[in-house]
Order: sequence, then C-alpha cells, then structure tokens
Amino acid sequence: MFDPGDLAEPIIQAPLAGGPSTPALASAVCEAGGLGFLAAGYKTADGVQEEIEALRGSTSRPFGVNLFVPPKSGVDSSAVHAYRERIATEAERQGADLGEPRSDDDDWERKLELLQQESPAVGSFTFGLPEASVIDALRANAVAVWITVTNADEAVRAREAGADALVVQGVEAGGHRGGFSDDPEESGWGLLALLRVVARRVSLPMIAAGGIADGQAVAAVLCAGASAAQVGTALMLAPEAGTAKAHRELLSKAGPTRLTRAFTGRTARGIVNRFLLEHNEGAPAAYPEIHHITSPLRAAARRRGDPEAINLWAGQAHELAQKLPAGEIVRRLGAEARAALADVDQRLG
Amino acid sequence: MFDPGDLAEPIIQAPLAGGPSTPALASAVCEAGGLGFLAAGYKTADGVQEEIEALRGSTSRPFGVNLFVPPKSGVDSSAVHAYRERIATEAERQGADLGEPRSDDDDWERKLELLQQESPAVGSFTFGLPEASVIDALRANAVAVWITVTNADEAVRAREAGADALVVQGVEAGGHRGGFSDDPEESGWGLLALLRVVARRVSLPMIAAGGIADGQAVAAVLCAGASAAQVGTALMLAPEAGTAKAHRELLSKAGPTRLTRAFTGRTARGIVNRFLLEHNEGAPAAYPEIHHITSPLRAAARRRGDPEAINLWAGQAHELAQKLPAGEIVRRLGAEARAALADVDQRLG
Repeated sequence: MFDPGDLAEPIIQAPLAGGPSTPALASAVCEAGGLGFLAAGYKTADGVQEEIEALRGSTSRPFGVNLFVPPKSGVDSSAVHAYRERIATEAERQGADLGEPRSDDDDWERKLELLQQESPAVGSFTFGLPEASVIDALRANAVAVWITVTNADEAVRAREAGADALVVQGVEAGGHRGGFSDDPEESGWGLLALLRVVARRVSLPMIAAGGIADGQAVAAVLCAGASAAQVGTALMLAPEAGTAKAHRELLSKAGPTRLTRAFTGRTARGIVNRFLLEHNEGAPAAYPEIHHITSPLRAAARRRGDPEAINLWAGQAHELAQKLPAGEIVRRLGAEARAALADVDQRLG
Repeated sequence: MFDPGDLAEPIIQAPLAGGPSTPALASAVCEAGGLGFLAAGYKTADGVQEEIEALRGSTSRPFGVNLFVPPKSGVDSSAVHAYRERIATEAERQGADLGEPRSDDDDWERKLELLQQESPAVGSFTFGLPEASVIDALRANAVAVWITVTNADEAVRAREAGADALVVQGVEAGGHRGGFSDDPEESGWGLLALLRVVARRVSLPMIAAGGIADGQAVAAVLCAGASAAQVGTALMLAPEAGTAKAHRELLSKAGPTRLTRAFTGRTARGIVNRFLLEHNEGAPAAYPEIHHITSPLRAAARRRGDPEAINLWAGQAHELAQKLPAGEIVRRLGAEARAALADVDQRLG
C-alpha cells in the first residue's frame, strides 16, 4: 500500500477541485518527487477517466484521486429559495441566469467503480466517511484510502472504518472544510494543535493540510508528526494549474480570507470580496444546492474577469504563493524544509 | 537586550492572568532554562510589585512581566445593561451578586512606572500597541518590549513602533485573543500560517503562541521561524500554577473549546460549558465592563467547584497538558522537541 513517508519530497498536491486541478499539474508534482492528485469532484466519471488516462500518459509515478462523499442530510428548501431570490440581482449584474437548486451525489457510484477499475495509488475522500465496505473493497484492490478529518473525533472514526491515512485539515486551509459535518465550530482547529491531538489518539500516518505555502511550514508539520504536507494554494499560480486569471491576480497579494457558505452552501475559505461580504450572513447550510444556484453566476464573473463575484478559494498564507512551474515549487519546498531543519538543529544544539 | 534565542530551553511561559500565574510558576520555568512571566493584568500595581519581589527572591534569572493595554473605544452601554439583566438568574444560581459595569485602565500608568522601576528583562503587552514613547522609554531602561499580534498588519505596526519582538498568537490559543482589535475575523489566523506570513513581512524575533502543548509542537514552531514557543495551558496543571480545582479537572480531558465574549466582553477561548453556550450569542464587545459584571459570579462558581459557570480558559490542545512540576514540563518540552527534530532529519535524509 502506498506510504506517504516514502515520497522523495514530502509534498502532496491538494486535489483542488473546481478548476485549478489538471493532469499537467498532477504530473509535474509526481515527476518532482511529490504526490500529484486529480480532483474527481464536480466532474463526470467519464471526465475523470480521461484525466487519469492523460496523467498516466505523462508519468508512471503513483498519484491520488479525490472524491466527494455525498451529503446525507436534506436541506431547508425555503431557506434555499430565499437565498436564490436574495442573489438574483447579482446574477443580473453578471449577465447570468441562476442555476436550479438541485441535490446530487456527484456521480458517486460510478466514480467508486472508476477507482476500482483504475486503481490509483491513493483514493482520498472529502466531506465524510465512506461505508467501511467501500473502504475494504478499495484496499483489497491496493488503493490506499485517505480520509479528510478536521477534528480528533473524525480521526478516530476514520481509523475505526479502516482508513490507511488521515488528511488532517486545519482551519487555515483554502476551499471547502473537508470534514464530516459542516459545523464550523467542530472544524475550527488550527493545524498544529490538531496534528498533535490526532497523533495522541490515532496512530495512522497523517498528511497535514492548511495554510502550508513554504518549506519552513513543511518542516514544521513534519516535526508535528505528519508524514507529508499537502499544499494547494501554493501550487495555484503554477502555469500547469487551471486557476482562473482573476483568481491568480488576487492570490499572490496580501489580503484577508474568511470562511463562508455564500458561494456553495458549505463552509469554505476564500479571499474576501464583495459577494462574500454581502451574502455571508444570509447563506444557508445547503450543499450542493447553493453550489448549483451560484455556479453560472460565478462562471460568468470568471469569464468577465470580475473578482468580486468569484469564489476566490485561498488558504490563509496565500500571499506566499509563487508563480513558478509546479515541479520547481515542489523541489523548493523540500529544499527550504531541509534548510529550516538544519537551522533549528543548530539552535537547539 | 534580552534575546529569546539565547534561552537554554526555547520555552516561554504565557503570562496566564486571572489566577494561574504565580511567582512560583515563573520561578520554576526560569530555573529550568525557560523564561517565566508574571501577569500584571487584573492586579494592583502594588500586588505586582510584591510578586516581582517574591520572584526575585527565588531566581536570579531573567523573567518577563505582561501588561494589558487599556481599551481605547467606548462601549454600547445599553447592550451592556441588557447583558447584565440576561445573566441575573445565573448570578442567583451561584449565590453571587453581579458586579458593576465599570471601565478602567487596569492601573496602566502605575504599572508602567513599576516596569521602569523594576526593569524586568521583558515587558510584554496584550490588547494593543503602547505609544512609541512608552516603548522607547522602556527600551532605554533595558526592558525588551514584546507586542502580542494576531495578524500580519499588527506585526508591521508593532515593528514601526519599535518593538523588540513579537508574540505571534494563533487562533488555537486559550484565554483572550491578545491583538489590537476584538474583531475575531482579523484574529482568526492559525499559528503556522501566521508565523510564515509575519516572517515574510517583519524581521523581528517571533515568539509562537497558541495550542503548543508538547515538544513536537515546539519543534514545529521553531522550524516555522519562531525563536521560542510560549506555552500556557501546558503549564496549568503544574502544582506551582494557581489554576482553580474545577478548572484543572476539565483541562486534561478531551473536550471542545470555543471563542466567546460571554465571560468578559472580549473574545477568549475556553472549554465549552453551560454558561458559554447559553450566553455566547448575547454577549456584546464590551471589555472590561462585562468582565467586571461577571467577576463575582465566576468567583462564586470557582468556590463552589461548579465548572459550568467558570471561564475555563484553555488552548485547543488542552487535553495534552500534563500534571507535572513546571520545571519538568519545560525540560520535557525541550527534550521532545530535540527528538522530533532528529526524527525528521532522518526522514528527509
């Protein structure tokens, strides 16, 4: 089974669903000695299969595929419709229609079949814990199962279900909170404290995620017990990433981020912009309904280059992201981590 | 001027105002090779002077004294009175009167004079930035001035005002958020990301604070560029600490913490209990008025041993706190940090 401790560089690409993820990005990370990832989320199973084939055409190294676990509970449809009316003027402003508030399971069953068929080194899961039978079947097929957790109770449940490793996501992380529930109070752990508390309770390999954008932070999470660091925002300015132009322009500048449900109905961290400020309070916990409602509006804003209505996902340390080829970023993170360790070795004598 | 990088152990005691701070705790930390601290907050200047004398009677090593910077803006007194009425039944339940919602400056001028007179190695500041003239005068008297910051803008302002070092406090920290404003959005940074962003913008020594409770976390913040780790909760079970009995009992158990203004009118992290849950939503931003209102109620709950109405300040990693003498905790944190570094050295080759 794939062990993150065996990577030449202790760097794992975050899946980056919703645009930035590309086979070229995953391939560059793999070839530099890290672990590249494909994001199955929001795509059709056929689309994901094509990406896996493209990736395998450009690297023979191990890689991972990330899936969204479907939501279990229903939503308050009157709150969803009220929110749809609330943002109607924004859609007009962007010259876009609003989407319908449908629920779906992101093609879950077909994507699971695809994982079984393609057998990538790692299958990682966001937004919940798959059934133990799903985990067992993947593991029987040599797919290492990684579960995203945002608190120690989730870590214990993931171990009990048979996970091979934990993606331990701190509150610093950009994009969606990836844990089992959408209660921000349960997922408000800073990465460092969370790694230590999880390490005391669960002896599984940990992959640290959240606000890691340079090698000093990579060295830090390794000291805190992680087998590797997962970086997302730090790779989003790479030419291989599919990051939208207006998004790129804001990523490398200093600017506050905030957790919000305004864009998708599920808590996620993005750079503060007008849409986030105007609709943060009113947005209900209703994923993927709100995602589907705002999707055409956000796509239009991306086409128009209007950053004020795009979901500008970014981790707290986004101003440290560098515009470099992805492979160079991976190697630089590793080199900075080694240098930071050497400095501290000297300090502690 | 005192340099945190020169400590034999890279451990600095958090000031721990409001009970846990004692001269015996500070002395034990100093004697073990760390930097002990006295908390001037909530005390009279005379009381602080007595503590400094007691500490100097038991150690000749350097130590620090922490002051609260007085609030600058007024409060909404109708909201304060409404909150006072809201918690009246809780006071009854505890058999206590409620305090009057007075404002005060925590004896600021006399405590500054005391710092000048006693000239401890470090004067650290919480809740804001003293005037540059205050900083200059202390520095002229060989008192190193450390400023608590919770975001990078505050760090830049502290450097511009002449600070010697920054106490960089992540959202993981127990007790009050120590930055310049009480907007939780501005101070919601996870420690690791905050250290890296501050390090890129300001070249002052950083003391990392927030959720650090074992040596692996100490090694982590050193890799992230800190000169030392400030630990608070990790020392609160030491026999030398003045931590209340009911508080001790909950600290070492797993249990969620939350940020709240319910106890003091200023955002602070504590273990979730009934008072926090019942009054979190209603509490206005009004420090120290709310502090004075709830103070007798909390004291009564402490006497009665009722944890449900005490401000159970605790960092996110509180379940890692150990019941050991403070000096042993300091040495253990150092030893664990060295071991963690050696492990990662081996991993990275």
